Amino acid sequence: MSEAPVWSVDPRTGEHRAKVTAEATAADVDTAVRAAHATRDALADRPTRAAFLRTATAELEAAREEIVAEADAETALGTVRLNGELARTCTQLRAFADVVDAGEYLDVIIDHPDDAIVPPVPDLRRYKVPLGVVAVYAASNFPLAFSVPGGDTASALAAGCPVVVKAHPDHPATSELVLAALRKAAAAHGLPETVISVVHGFDAGLALIRHPLVAAAGFTGSVRGGRALFDAAAARPTPIPFHGELGSLNPVVVTRAAAADRAEEIGAGLAGSMTLGVGQFCVKPGLVLVPEGTDGDHLVDTLSQSVAATAPGVLLDHRMRDNFLAGIAERLGLPGVDAPVTAGADGDHGVRAGVLSVSAAALAASGTHDALLEECFGPVTVVARYTDDGQVNAVLDRLPGNLTATLHVSPRESEGEGDAGALLARLTELAGRIVVDGWPTGVAVAPAQHHGGPYPSTTSTSTSVGTTAIERWLRPVAYQNTPEALLPPELRDANPLGLPRRVDGRREV
Amino acid sequence: MSEAPVWSVDPRTGEHRAKVTAEATAADVDTAVRAAHATRDALADRPTRAAFLRTATAELEAAREEIVAEADAETALGTVRLNGELARTCTQLRAFADVVDAGEYLDVIIDHPDDAIVPPVPDLRRYKVPLGVVAVYAASNFPLAFSVPGGDTASALAAGCPVVVKAHPDHPATSELVLAALRKAAAAHGLPETVISVVHGFDAGLALIRHPLVAAAGFTGSVRGGRALFDAAAARPTPIPFHGELGSLNPVVVTRAAAADRAEEIGAGLAGSMTLGVGQFCVKPGLVLVPEGTDGDHLVDTLSQSVAATAPGVLLDHRMRDNFLAGIAERLGLPGVDAPVTAGADGDHGVRAGVLSVSAAALAASGTHDALLEECFGPVTVVARYTDDGQVNAVLDRLPGNLTATLHVSPRESEGEGDAGALLARLTELAGRIVVDGWPTGVAVAPAQHHGGPYPSTTSTSTSVGTTAIERWLRPVAYQNTPEALLPPELRDANPLGLPRRVDGRREV
Repeated sequence: MSEAPVWSVDPRTGEHRAKVTAEATAADVDTAVRAAHATRDALADRPTRAAFLRTATAELEAAREEIVAEADAETALGTVRLNGELARTCTQLRAFADVVDAGEYLDVIIDHPDDAIVPPVPDLRRYKVPLGVVAVYAASNFPLAFSVPGGDTASALAAGCPVVVKAHPDHPATSELVLAALRKAAAAHGLPETVISVVHGFDAGLALIRHPLVAAAGFTGSVRGGRALFDAAAARPTPIPFHGELGSLNPVVVTRAAAADRAEEIGAGLAGSMTLGVGQFCVKPGLVLVPEGTDGDHLVDTLSQSVAATAPGVLLDHRMRDNFLAGIAERLGLPGVDAPVTAGADGDHGVRAGVLSVSAAALAASGTHDALLEECFGPVTVVARYTDDGQVNAVLDRLPGNLTATLHVSPRESEGEGDAGALLARLTELAGRIVVDGWPTGVAVAPAQHHGGPYPSTTSTSTSVGTTAIERWLRPVAYQNTPEALLPPELRDANPLGLPRRVDGRREV
Repeated sequence: MSEAPVWSVDPRTGEHRAKVTAEATAADVDTAVRAAHATRDALADRPTRAAFLRTATAELEAAREEIVAEADAETALGTVRLNGELARTCTQLRAFADVVDAGEYLDVIIDHPDDAIVPPVPDLRRYKVPLGVVAVYAASNFPLAFSVPGGDTASALAAGCPVVVKAHPDHPATSELVLAALRKAAAAHGLPETVISVVHGFDAGLALIRHPLVAAAGFTGSVRGGRALFDAAAARPTPIPFHGELGSLNPVVVTRAAAADRAEEIGAGLAGSMTLGVGQFCVKPGLVLVPEGTDGDHLVDTLSQSVAATAPGVLLDHRMRDNFLAGIAERLGLPGVDAPVTAGADGDHGVRAGVLSVSAAALAASGTHDALLEECFGPVTVVARYTDDGQVNAVLDRLPGNLTATLHVSPRESEGEGDAGALLARLTELAGRIVVDGWPTGVAVAPAQHHGGPYPSTTSTSTSVGTTAIERWLRPVAYQNTPEALLPPELRDANPLGLPRRVDGRREV
């Protein structure tokens, strides 16, 4: 059997641009994983890893024009967005280089012997070690920041874990180009190039998650694809952690007072957020609770005008376009669903953004409108009009887990008046990031960031953005009664590496 | 259909002592979980939780005599051991009370806005919130420290999670007695008694892991039982974290130099560790690599003499006794397996400890001796005699994951001479706690403790002993651009609760 070709496709035309490579066979995957596994010792040195990550940013910057052009040709995301995404990608790599240098992620804890405790405490020293080879499943919608050089890769390499990326079929050429830049950076620091590899193909992705030497996985994509891989990871003879970011509705609640205060600002802001990147963000606000009445009408009118005036766009691939159009049609077919702006096809390759509207009462009723509670990937949002707080809570009670939840309040509510605090507490149960008076799109790379939430938004309690994402690829190990000469330097009393640590309950920064 | 009775059984006689209660039906489990879920708000106050945990220790101490007598009658573990276990249980509860007070587990991170970063960082504040109702599966071999009032319960309550315990059938009366003490402590602080509940029965355990309002689970037990529950947790419509401690062989490597230096001390120490608690510890050393030759012979002779002189004991229940005797017979039937001391039955209810012996070469060969690489619960260990380091590594290559790995070295090796460092690094890949010149039995409760390791020893990367065990029951949540008045007090700039935190990259202790 000949190997299946991997094509780079132009979503603006549907045409095949070039044959990039062939899909990886099971043997290819095995070779890649074994080669990655063999680099663990080389990756063990922290200063080398930090330097590698920094050089990676330099190599990516050096190839910026070529990378952005290739990614734009494959994804139609546009050069402005892609230049920004490359900058974000470099920010992530640098942030993890800093994390590696700081060493706080090692979570060093040292307890000297204490016979006064029952049972007695011997000499115990704990830190964290890398899990092993990490499989990264690249996202369609971020050809850089959540793909080959993205946050999963950066955090895994930072942790000392070699990486095998399953490339997304929407950007195979970009994947190979970026891989070359990362491997050049590895070579510059004497690291084997196989600290990172890329494989292509659906079957390769399955072979990867099942490989005995793969120790953990990161995934960004759909609920269906992510759940299938999660199930495969859990069904292994040796199950492995699967950190998947699947799907999210990202509900927004606009209080009555907020609508009264700034209906236009909220309507226009929502239009900008839901159409950004042609609605292809995992944190796109997909459900917005707006009060019935004049102020709410005003908000929806502004939203609709802005969305109607939004230029058509091209989705990442034609399958997504088909799904988007089918999703709109399915939702429009539900009883009581209106379309203040009808999303739809634009020519043979593009799409127009739209707005759907329904009563909160219909949405809160069991069963009939469940399609509106599922993510519809693309430039559309659902406005649910409510008459009272009871309806808001009834809708929230029906929501699955989310990456984000957003609350718009009035200035007085901001100061604590009314029930905004209780609403915020309720939203906290539903999501991993709570945004007030803003929009969930735009996920900052920062220590306090959390990009993850109750299932199905993620399959674990960890984050895929922000510096704590490194925690996913480590496991603690404790040494008991171990002579100084045999201890890893990270755990020696003299602290030769100058690491932050907790010793006998006291933090040493 | 009438409900199945739950009997308290005396393992020393096999007689039914008393009917304790009935097995929980699915409706009973639902009631318990819903009642637990309803207590989340009551558990939200940290000072109340800490006080509750401390009062729990007082209530357990007040009922000490009754608890120890009941547990001894049900488990035959003896009053000395059980008094120690109760002290350990109280140590754990107090340690988690201290953790709750200190608040470092909340992992507060605050980033103020920074427009200089790409993409710009808004105001972001992160901390950790409780996951929800935690299901705890009690262990047979620790009726207190890993059961109703044990580490899983203590850490979950400390995190703010209500608990429903699936009691172990080996100690139902103790479970109910201890539950009463914990509920008395809850009431003393105005908490609903349903912050903790107990259910009995195999089917109840399955209903519990599948309940939609159960958010996470902790388990200590067998590979078979733990894997079945892990699979059920992963197969839920909404999968949940399952922190299971299943089985572990706990390998020990005695270097040639160590055997030359102190064969007797090691042999006697090993006998003590492997027979402690009638060999019913999850960290019992179950496989010991000993050099061929005179020194190794001397070690095995000392071990054998000590084991042969060990008084017979009673296992936790008759099923375990049957499994132990069948396991010994199966292993003795393998080619080349000797029994320097033959384990076996003692009367109708007891067992005698034993030692098995095999060549490392046979053990390293694929397939034929795999039964020796599985945990045999009870007072037996397997000595594998090696001729060179290659054989040691070949055996280690065949081992599954372990809670612990132990290395015995000579004084010179302690100082860095020879290959002990490399051996320690190799053992680190196989286990979560590495012990040098000691024994794995005796798991201290301390911040640096790690009780967990690669599968099947645990199903996650977390620990079930030590203060970091609280991390299992929490998830981070980030607040973006949230007005001070709406922020949880934990995240306000003024730090009204005086919590340790990281602000703009700087740690404030």
